[in-house]
Amino acid sequence: MCDVCVMNTVKERMLSRRAFFKTGAAAGAAATLGVTAAPPAMAAGHGGVVDMTHVYDEAFPTYFGAPGISTEQPFNFAEHGFNLFNLSVNEHTGTHIDAPLHFSADGASVDEIPVSSLVVPLCVVDIAARAEGDADAQVTPDDLTAWMADHGDIPDGACVAMHSGWAGKTGGDGYRNVGSDGKMHFPGFHIEATRMLLEETGAGAMAVDTLSLDHGPSETFDTHYAWLPAGRYGIENLAGLGQVPAAGATLVVGAPTHRGGTGGPARIFAMV
Amino acid sequence: MCDVCVMNTVKERMLSRRAFFKTGAAAGAAATLGVTAAPPAMAAGHGGVVDMTHVYDEAFPTYFGAPGISTEQPFNFAEHGFNLFNLSVNEHTGTHIDAPLHFSADGASVDEIPVSSLVVPLCVVDIAARAEGDADAQVTPDDLTAWMADHGDIPDGACVAMHSGWAGKTGGDGYRNVGSDGKMHFPGFHIEATRMLLEETGAGAMAVDTLSLDHGPSETFDTHYAWLPAGRYGIENLAGLGQVPAAGATLVVGAPTHRGGTGGPARIFAMV
Repeated sequence: MCDVCVMNTVKERMLSRRAFFKTGAAAGAAATLGVTAAPPAMAAGHGGVVDMTHVYDEAFPTYFGAPGISTEQPFNFAEHGFNLFNLSVNEHTGTHIDAPLHFSADGASVDEIPVSSLVVPLCVVDIAARAEGDADAQVTPDDLTAWMADHGDIPDGACVAMHSGWAGKTGGDGYRNVGSDGKMHFPGFHIEATRMLLEETGAGAMAVDTLSLDHGPSETFDTHYAWLPAGRYGIENLAGLGQVPAAGATLVVGAPTHRGGTGGPARIFAMV
Repeated sequence: MCDVCVMNTVKERMLSRRAFFKTGAAAGAAATLGVTAAPPAMAAGHGGVVDMTHVYDEAFPTYFGAPGISTEQPFNFAEHGFNLFNLSVNEHTGTHIDAPLHFSADGASVDEIPVSSLVVPLCVVDIAARAEGDADAQVTPDDLTAWMADHGDIPDGACVAMHSGWAGKTGGDGYRNVGSDGKMHFPGFHIEATRMLLEETGAGAMAVDTLSLDHGPSETFDTHYAWLPAGRYGIENLAGLGQVPAAGATLVVGAPTHRGGTGGPARIFAMV
């Protein structure tokens, strides 16, 4: 068998064995392999890497509108022989994490999220067509039910991501999309979908390609207050969702590790 | 064949096929698979994740000695219903990247390092025994030759990491290890080893578990000035090197993406 054929055959075999990993037997198998914190999807053997992270600067849209980062340069190459910047960063800038502590008195800080929660199956719920006609569109329980009908159960620990098509709008006013009512208008997760994820699945993270887990006009942040205090984390301003499959990719979430943080800019890849 | 056996057999087959990926045929094979920027090692199918990142705060040792991060909290849960910090961070703090721009006038900034250079084979050169007796120990050409004798060629694009045992010292003065001469004393890469990597291998990154690619007493930063302007990048203050094999792991480098940066705190994992 040719090398490429071997690889494809292996990949298919591994994918077909996904059901095995969903059972309690997975822990035992991992132990036999001498492996700890083995996320099931990594065992399938991935071949490509997709960057899920926006480059950000002073102009990158932020929830509050003010620039999320500024820099000063105490050392420059011409004068000092090397370049170095000091950064002033609002934790919730660019492609970033919302740790449980962001919306709770004493939830886990970003450095306390376990590694096993940062390399996880990615489930992409595509509401881009609906969002194109309704900027306030939300992921609903029906969207989750439809995803599961097509792709099976949401794996334990998975990150469930909303693909609204908003990632292409970061260069203009359409990303924050402030209306004549003075409110922002962009998609997010409906509280009922959030409750469904909490009560009926073992999902560990949710992600949006917009500025907030709650849709733009929200004034009560219901999804934030339901999801984060439950010990789950969120990802906002995720990029690249148009380049990954609805199911089968593994998200690698490079969360920052400043002690006690409520979140922060992250580098996020999908292994496809 | 049992599931675990299948996985091990597959892993062995993939590893034995490494030579294939080193040839020009790799690009063609990747294209056939519909995969872009596919790092060879990812094809082998990994099972475990090791965190290679230190948690950092105001007390984490820095090259210049001053705290590398400070925070202020404009929003707190009791008063505002959510927690949020603004961070002031020296780019070269904690486990972090040195982009080519750090030691060159116009090299690549951290956001310009291609994704294909951030998911790469990891080669660990262990000089911990020597460093225990000599804090100024350096990775030499002989160390690289010995590694290659044991593990084969250094793969193209690989990250070559110095394991000096310094990662366990971050809690005390022994990490910066300032001597009676007023100089710091910790291990790094010798300029001749750096030149060997540049001239005789296709390595794309080097990493140290200390504060600098150059060893502590260096006043000329020869390794920085050879490596970074050559379009390679560095990793400083890497953790976890005692938990990964000398060869065979894949390093996933979650470099930050602030535009124009000379580097920055990164989240780094090894897939083993």
